[in-house]
Amino acid sequence: MGLQPGERIDQLYAEGIQIIQSREVFSFSLDAVLLANFPKIPKRGKIVDLCAGNGAVGLFIAKKTAATIEMVELQPRLAEMAQRSVALNQLEDQITVYNLDLKDSLSKIPADSTDLLLCNPPYFKNLPTNDKNPNPHLAIARHEIHADLHDVLRVSAKMLKMNGRFAMVHRPERFLEIMQLMPQYRLAPKRVQFVYPKANKDANILLVEGIKDGKTDGFKVAPPLITYGADGEYTPEIKEMLYGRH
Amino acid sequence: MGLQPGERIDQLYAEGIQIIQSREVFSFSLDAVLLANFPKIPKRGKIVDLCAGNGAVGLFIAKKTAATIEMVELQPRLAEMAQRSVALNQLEDQITVYNLDLKDSLSKIPADSTDLLLCNPPYFKNLPTNDKNPNPHLAIARHEIHADLHDVLRVSAKMLKMNGRFAMVHRPERFLEIMQLMPQYRLAPKRVQFVYPKANKDANILLVEGIKDGKTDGFKVAPPLITYGADGEYTPEIKEMLYGRH
Repeated sequence: MGLQPGERIDQLYAEGIQIIQSREVFSFSLDAVLLANFPKIPKRGKIVDLCAGNGAVGLFIAKKTAATIEMVELQPRLAEMAQRSVALNQLEDQITVYNLDLKDSLSKIPADSTDLLLCNPPYFKNLPTNDKNPNPHLAIARHEIHADLHDVLRVSAKMLKMNGRFAMVHRPERFLEIMQLMPQYRLAPKRVQFVYPKANKDANILLVEGIKDGKTDGFKVAPPLITYGADGEYTPEIKEMLYGRH
Repeated sequence: MGLQPGERIDQLYAEGIQIIQSREVFSFSLDAVLLANFPKIPKRGKIVDLCAGNGAVGLFIAKKTAATIEMVELQPRLAEMAQRSVALNQLEDQITVYNLDLKDSLSKIPADSTDLLLCNPPYFKNLPTNDKNPNPHLAIARHEIHADLHDVLRVSAKMLKMNGRFAMVHRPERFLEIMQLMPQYRLAPKRVQFVYPKANKDANILLVEGIKDGKTDGFKVAPPLITYGADGEYTPEIKEMLYGRH
């Protein structure tokens, strides 16, 4: 198992996971760590990670569950990185990586089969006016070039079992749209959590959980997560996600 | 200006305002203080306080603006308390109290006339299964017996000028419904703020601001407000709203 030029191996100490990263191609962000820590992880069954990138979210939850984990990533270069990270952590028996457009992923992952669906999709609309990263790997990961929110929700809802859980990380600017679209795709929003870069700043990350064919009552706003303290260091909650409990 | 049996005079020290309260009839809650501190208050023009109760919200903002303030309160006993509090603070030139059903309030406050509309409406649905306070004053203030969210939004939107601001305090459980209904009544949600009773608890209060005929982009989630610190005391932010800057 070798590294390609520009790649490095990073650790998520909290979960004892190693992950292959590359500044030029893809590195996981705090968003992936937050998403992996957001929903209740089922102990068994099937978990799908859509828009998996280099596999960070699926890798981070692997040791918390006996469920099989299936990753779907469009970009061959990223799917291949994820596959090597799976091997590096000796998780081949638990994790399968599919190099697939999510719109074709029901060919590999049947409808109504999934207990938990995790997704860290591209955040930005694919508008001609939007500045995009000239690096196509990063542009595809960040902008809705190959899949938009409709695609993500439609495919997610199809894969999920009735009462299966959907969890997504996104941007608060898209919150209204997400709340409007989820019910159109049979996903009842049940819980959101806002992440604020500092205690006195507007939220910059949104976590949202829904249930397929769930009831729409009982909506909850989970406790606030603050990324950085007044000292500019990660807060204890974030440190625990990254480095574990000490 | 006398007090009736059971009434007392409380102070909001931060604003130098005295307010007549009654445990049996109505006392303002922290929600009114939060609402009064949430939107930017226009310096002039017209501000309306719908579902005014004993007038807390309108009284709390009076010294921050030269705008006229018009209060609408359905219950005669509460409207009369509000009127005596206005007199107690010598604010008769600035504040008018209407004892009116909000559904009739366009007879006194013309359509398209209002710069800022504040509302602390009943939070709970009027379901036969809901336990209601046996005290009718409190039941009407808390449950949607005489006006529901549709009424509040419809009347608010009508009163507001184009690009006028709407600010409401409500419960996070009703958040999805509020986000769905506001645009139906020409109120574009622009900013929300969640209030958490403690740093590690789900939000229990929602503040939402909208603009009549506003654009739907640029949605923001304002910094978290925490009510109580780990020591069980109000946090500095809440103390400042109640007692002012020391």
